[in-house]
Amino acid sequence: MRIVMKFGGSSLASAIHIRRAAELIARQRAEGDQVAVVVSAQGDTTDALIEKAREINPKPCGRERDMLLCCGEQMSMALMAMQLEALGCPAVSFCGWQAGIRTESRHGDARILKVEPQRVKQVLEQGRVAVVAGFQGIDGEGELTTLGRGGSDTTAVALAAALQADLCRIYTDVQGVYSADPRVVEQARVHREISYDEMLEMASLGAKVLHSRAVELAREHGVRVEVRSTFTPQTGGTALGSECGHGQAVRGIACDDRVDMVTVMGLGDGPETCRLFNCLADSGISIDVIIRSPGDRPERGVVSFSVGAADREKVAAVLKSSQRELNFSGFLVQTDMAKVSVVGAGMSDGCGVAAGMLRALQEGEIRPQYITTGELRISVILPKAQAQQAVRLIHAAFFEN
Amino acid sequence: MRIVMKFGGSSLASAIHIRRAAELIARQRAEGDQVAVVVSAQGDTTDALIEKAREINPKPCGRERDMLLCCGEQMSMALMAMQLEALGCPAVSFCGWQAGIRTESRHGDARILKVEPQRVKQVLEQGRVAVVAGFQGIDGEGELTTLGRGGSDTTAVALAAALQADLCRIYTDVQGVYSADPRVVEQARVHREISYDEMLEMASLGAKVLHSRAVELAREHGVRVEVRSTFTPQTGGTALGSECGHGQAVRGIACDDRVDMVTVMGLGDGPETCRLFNCLADSGISIDVIIRSPGDRPERGVVSFSVGAADREKVAAVLKSSQRELNFSGFLVQTDMAKVSVVGAGMSDGCGVAAGMLRALQEGEIRPQYITTGELRISVILPKAQAQQAVRLIHAAFFEN
Repeated sequence: MRIVMKFGGSSLASAIHIRRAAELIARQRAEGDQVAVVVSAQGDTTDALIEKAREINPKPCGRERDMLLCCGEQMSMALMAMQLEALGCPAVSFCGWQAGIRTESRHGDARILKVEPQRVKQVLEQGRVAVVAGFQGIDGEGELTTLGRGGSDTTAVALAAALQADLCRIYTDVQGVYSADPRVVEQARVHREISYDEMLEMASLGAKVLHSRAVELAREHGVRVEVRSTFTPQTGGTALGSECGHGQAVRGIACDDRVDMVTVMGLGDGPETCRLFNCLADSGISIDVIIRSPGDRPERGVVSFSVGAADREKVAAVLKSSQRELNFSGFLVQTDMAKVSVVGAGMSDGCGVAAGMLRALQEGEIRPQYITTGELRISVILPKAQAQQAVRLIHAAFFEN
Repeated sequence: MRIVMKFGGSSLASAIHIRRAAELIARQRAEGDQVAVVVSAQGDTTDALIEKAREINPKPCGRERDMLLCCGEQMSMALMAMQLEALGCPAVSFCGWQAGIRTESRHGDARILKVEPQRVKQVLEQGRVAVVAGFQGIDGEGELTTLGRGGSDTTAVALAAALQADLCRIYTDVQGVYSADPRVVEQARVHREISYDEMLEMASLGAKVLHSRAVELAREHGVRVEVRSTFTPQTGGTALGSECGHGQAVRGIACDDRVDMVTVMGLGDGPETCRLFNCLADSGISIDVIIRSPGDRPERGVVSFSVGAADREKVAAVLKSSQRELNFSGFLVQTDMAKVSVVGAGMSDGCGVAAGMLRALQEGEIRPQYITTGELRISVILPKAQAQQAVRLIHAAFFEN
């Protein structure tokens, strides 16, 4: 079969780590498979490069930042190819641009537009391993780009789709996709299977095992994805697919603890609300939970929404610059909030899930400030300090006994 | 005017070094000049990368080694562009392949075939600084290559030629081209001017200030080159050109202390000698001093030649594999030898130079084993242990009082 194996930074942290990963790759090839490998930068290389840049220029332009960061994956791909050669496994490394990873021009957060995998394919067909730098690509102008958070996962899935690979296996430092973060909930269990949609909700809600953009791409192209531990590869991990995981209503508890809750007061209920969200979207700000409630005058209400804490400054800038035009009276930002979500394919059927969730929180005397429900998830917004306890209570209610 | 400014690794060793170099660049641009910059990897980055590779694979293939090493210059070019931006000087960095540096395919020691500088030119014409990674290029197959020792000098000169720049200024950690290594000879002086040919002899004989390939290229394209200190840029440095430096017979003393002397015994004086040197050339081994002397039988003589100590293993391999075919009786290798040379444009006129050199050595009771003379230089081969004293004695005879 043809397989894409992806190794994250913690799986490549040192020469010994690289050797262990290379042994897994060589073994896969020895079984007669065609193997393409996608690597992240080693350990904390990317952070070290960012720090180096920050010393020189606190706000470097995106193009130069990408030029710098691309070196992280380029170093690790060359080292991996050398390690494979040392094990007698012929290997050829490729930078993103050499592997045909074509992206948009948005530096630091570019999306993959297409993959032209001819060179990689040729190497695979010669029986050699192709080692591709994750997280990076090239735009239409010949400029290097990076893909943003979780970019190497996305490279792996996109490459698997372009190569029509039978499997894309993501090696990471956890056993697979859990019912909740195992560092928070001791009893958390590993799912053997999960659907793309469930995984997408989990990922977008803060389960860090696989980036949501990668999951979207896998769903779009029907790529079979498997998440597995680099350190105990013999345990099975989690398989993603369209057909899996429909036996159980609640599949996982996700927690995103970097959330701000913004409240805009006195906003007209006509086109103003729509305009406000357009302004935010134009600035690249993702909004999740939105709640509208009447204010003191019926036609001018209060709108609250959650945003990632990383966007705090951007949100404030948009609101300040649009206040006059949209004619609202003011806004408040609650920081240090968290979003705890229950995810599952069967969510909408059993309205019992919301009730069960609130009952569990009630036991801990946690009263969430906002609740929102959807096809695949129910989320509550609460102070960050209560988040871990909330996850444990909800997990106990749905998964334990 | 249009200028190429090249900074070596020691001029970029830390964030503070990069800032100082960036200030020189910004000042040059502020004078209204078009400025292209070529950078080496920072400080000992290249050695650190080589060491990282060695841990993983003691003999990595050339392609992967080049992939790894290219990151050194890529990091320093991005950091330099960021530093220039921070100083308010608009800058755009380019990897070798983006700057159009096309090379042969020989990994680790590729020659530049041509430079296609359209992107760099465009940036210069927009009034921005182009920062180009030295030491690297791309071959006809789209593979990254590196240029070998002194590669960034070569990049700078080749780029200056392609851009028809008015000047290529090499910033380094010494004041310019000296009459002898100032670490060996306290009284060594800086030349204000030197001819390409003299510089070429100096460089190929071990004066490390500028690589001979870069000098050749400068001579070929008539590029005006200047060597200057990064740390005291106000002092003038040395200018290279075709018209300079004809007033003085002896221009400098060069010393290469990594020399082996190989002696092949019982070699036929017919086509065998020619064949032997062809074999060595085919293996990429450069030979310098060659001395032929009669052996015990007149038609079978002794041939001695000097080679770089780095080629020791390659030379032994060639000799062993060709001994039967060329029918010589054996060979000896003297290691730890040095070649001390006197260089000057007027060498062939005054036969007094050779005599003066030997007289100076005689004072130190140094009796060189081999002597060879040429248009532009006279070299002696002697044990490495005597080399520094020899340089001092010769320098005193020709330059002091």
